[in-house]
Amino acid sequence: MRPQEIIKKKRDGAALTRAEIGAFVDGVKNQLWADYQIAALLMAMFLRGLDTEETGFLIDSMLGSGEILDFSDLEKPKADKHSTGGVGDKTSLIVAPLAAACGVAVPMISGRGLGHTGGTLDKLESINNYNVNLTLAEFKKIVCKCGFAMSGQTAEIAPADKKLYALRDATATVEYIPLIVASIMSKKLAEGLDALVLDVKTGAGAFMKSEQDAVKLAAAMCAVGARRGVRTEALISDMNQPLGEFVGNALEVYESIKILRSEQNETMSATRELSIELAARILILSGICNNLTAARKKCEDNLRSGAALEKFRENIELQKGDARVCDKPEKMLEANVRQIEIRSAANGFVFAVDTKAVGEAISMIGGGRTKTSDKIDFAVGFAARKKIGDTAEKNETLGILYCRNRNQADAVREKLQKAYKIANEPPPKTVLIKQIIN
Amino acid sequence: MRPQEIIKKKRDGAALTRAEIGAFVDGVKNQLWADYQIAALLMAMFLRGLDTEETGFLIDSMLGSGEILDFSDLEKPKADKHSTGGVGDKTSLIVAPLAAACGVAVPMISGRGLGHTGGTLDKLESINNYNVNLTLAEFKKIVCKCGFAMSGQTAEIAPADKKLYALRDATATVEYIPLIVASIMSKKLAEGLDALVLDVKTGAGAFMKSEQDAVKLAAAMCAVGARRGVRTEALISDMNQPLGEFVGNALEVYESIKILRSEQNETMSATRELSIELAARILILSGICNNLTAARKKCEDNLRSGAALEKFRENIELQKGDARVCDKPEKMLEANVRQIEIRSAANGFVFAVDTKAVGEAISMIGGGRTKTSDKIDFAVGFAARKKIGDTAEKNETLGILYCRNRNQADAVREKLQKAYKIANEPPPKTVLIKQIIN
Repeated sequence: MRPQEIIKKKRDGAALTRAEIGAFVDGVKNQLWADYQIAALLMAMFLRGLDTEETGFLIDSMLGSGEILDFSDLEKPKADKHSTGGVGDKTSLIVAPLAAACGVAVPMISGRGLGHTGGTLDKLESINNYNVNLTLAEFKKIVCKCGFAMSGQTAEIAPADKKLYALRDATATVEYIPLIVASIMSKKLAEGLDALVLDVKTGAGAFMKSEQDAVKLAAAMCAVGARRGVRTEALISDMNQPLGEFVGNALEVYESIKILRSEQNETMSATRELSIELAARILILSGICNNLTAARKKCEDNLRSGAALEKFRENIELQKGDARVCDKPEKMLEANVRQIEIRSAANGFVFAVDTKAVGEAISMIGGGRTKTSDKIDFAVGFAARKKIGDTAEKNETLGILYCRNRNQADAVREKLQKAYKIANEPPPKTVLIKQIIN
Repeated sequence: MRPQEIIKKKRDGAALTRAEIGAFVDGVKNQLWADYQIAALLMAMFLRGLDTEETGFLIDSMLGSGEILDFSDLEKPKADKHSTGGVGDKTSLIVAPLAAACGVAVPMISGRGLGHTGGTLDKLESINNYNVNLTLAEFKKIVCKCGFAMSGQTAEIAPADKKLYALRDATATVEYIPLIVASIMSKKLAEGLDALVLDVKTGAGAFMKSEQDAVKLAAAMCAVGARRGVRTEALISDMNQPLGEFVGNALEVYESIKILRSEQNETMSATRELSIELAARILILSGICNNLTAARKKCEDNLRSGAALEKFRENIELQKGDARVCDKPEKMLEANVRQIEIRSAANGFVFAVDTKAVGEAISMIGGGRTKTSDKIDFAVGFAARKKIGDTAEKNETLGILYCRNRNQADAVREKLQKAYKIANEPPPKTVLIKQIIN
């Protein structure tokens, strides 16, 4: 089957067969399709649609294109958490060591920055020498040794997805539920899990702007998980403002370690709350706890005792990173970075935050990617000092931009300031965790 | 402007501004956009549409991205002919030397194989050592010297189009009128013409399946030409069967030289007829003749006298090719090629030919391209012995497949046989030239 014929069929609105979708995935994996042909089909899928059957074919092909991990010799429940991506969403860095501390094995295959959002791998790489490019053997070994490992997709795991994920990011074909479902689930199902907790973000900084779309996505993923025998649950969580305090790779690691050290400030509390909730759900689905109160308490205990921090330290050492950041999180804050205050244009309440604009601004100055080949500047970012509902006086600091030079500051200062909508009235109360789907 | 933002805007159905289309064309020209981003936007344009204003912006940007030739020192009318592409359509190889012999300067910038159709450059390259990669200086010099030159787009001429043309071919985004208009007209308007004759193909082997679409395309191109002060006329011509006898690069050169030598057989007569009509229209629009009868006679005379053949010989020599093919067109027929007869499955009349299938079959065995990087096998092709309306007995030869080996023959034999619809009733009479649009 010539790529053009398959592209043309979808372009003209027809449903693709299992064989055609298989040929596409095989073409991606084995470089029989050129990148521009893949991109053209992705756009045609986006605009013409993939039905449930086609999405199933896509997941099957993507999963079948690689290896499925086998942890049957490891006598622990295997579980993972996955977020659909947000701004300042660093919960993976807390949930993985926390769940591991509680007795779950977490084989976490993560991704890189996608659109205006960050990626766990990029964040981890901001830790000196931290290696996210583990071989499958290394990955398995570290999971068995310390309870969790965090790695990029190896060549063996859903190999087609790695390329598709990068291309979608660069071609504005990210925000389409069937493609998101296929991407996430083909990786997660390859991890050989017993349980999976999904954090589906909704709001101004999420791919799913509406809660309704987020619920649809969550339900679609839960159905795929269930069909494959993986206990799957999804939280619908708020992404109408950056999660916690920091946005930016090294800055988010800093915040995560502060929380693992129980040194968080008030601004970071949402990150902590959501991390505990996600970890608690993992404990229940994994059969380690049988009710939410017990599960939350176990998470609190393992955070407070420092057990989760020690798991993170152990992991960093096993992944060859500089684990001294666990003792001195300030090591993540590069001295050679300017801090520019973003000030309120008016008196009032922080009513809304254009969270996507915040993500884009940080991406523009090097915190994210425009092209898949772009290098990331780990040190740049933003500290969201004011949260929705806070009062702000004219010229009061809303947040701090971490950047390299005056040009960068000039390029995004206004975008950041305008991202904050200041109103005379207080906004309705925000709810961090909106729904549970299973 | 980030490529993703522009892609997203079109993906979501909005009209692009002059600045956005300009950024796209600039991104293509200066490699600021990756191929996969270009492909994604092309698919979004295809599916979401480009309005007349956007198409105008695209042509302006593409034209403005390069040089516009200046032949003001050459005291001849400057004109060109362009075909929208067909199967076995080799008229350029006849029209250019013929018009040149009649006193017109023809600076012909041509393209390569697109979809199931052939490209003039590929055909010319089947002549030993023929150089289609002229510099702009060489191109101008040859036009001035012998009256015509045929070259690929240089880096200076509508540079964005070269890449777009190749990418569209490989991503099933060819058959969309605004993209076709922009591609053709940005090249043709850069040639610095006084007049332009377009051959818009319609039927089973054309991009425009319906005559109505062909007329739309023709009218759109004539309007663009007129707006730029170039006298433009379009023929709507039949592409419901391969034009003339041969399909395939070297074979089409063979047929062209046979016609230039007045040695054509009956099967080649349509190629000759259409070539004369196109050249005659050029003579009128160029002001060399003032009526069609005189123009056609001038063309006939210049064919019969061998003046057009001598122009072709002069051109081949100037473009470094082996001009001995002008004396011995049989040199184009490679000895090392198998001839496989394709036979009729039934008694009756040749009622219709799936011309696109014929083009695809030849492309499949190397006569065309699946990817832009594919190499072409000049020697393979097809001789369409039976034409629509001919009678065919069961097992009588419909055509001859020129291929390299048994595997190739097995791969396409059935496709070629099935391309011929044999019916009990004779088909309606076919008309080669259906309409004139100006």
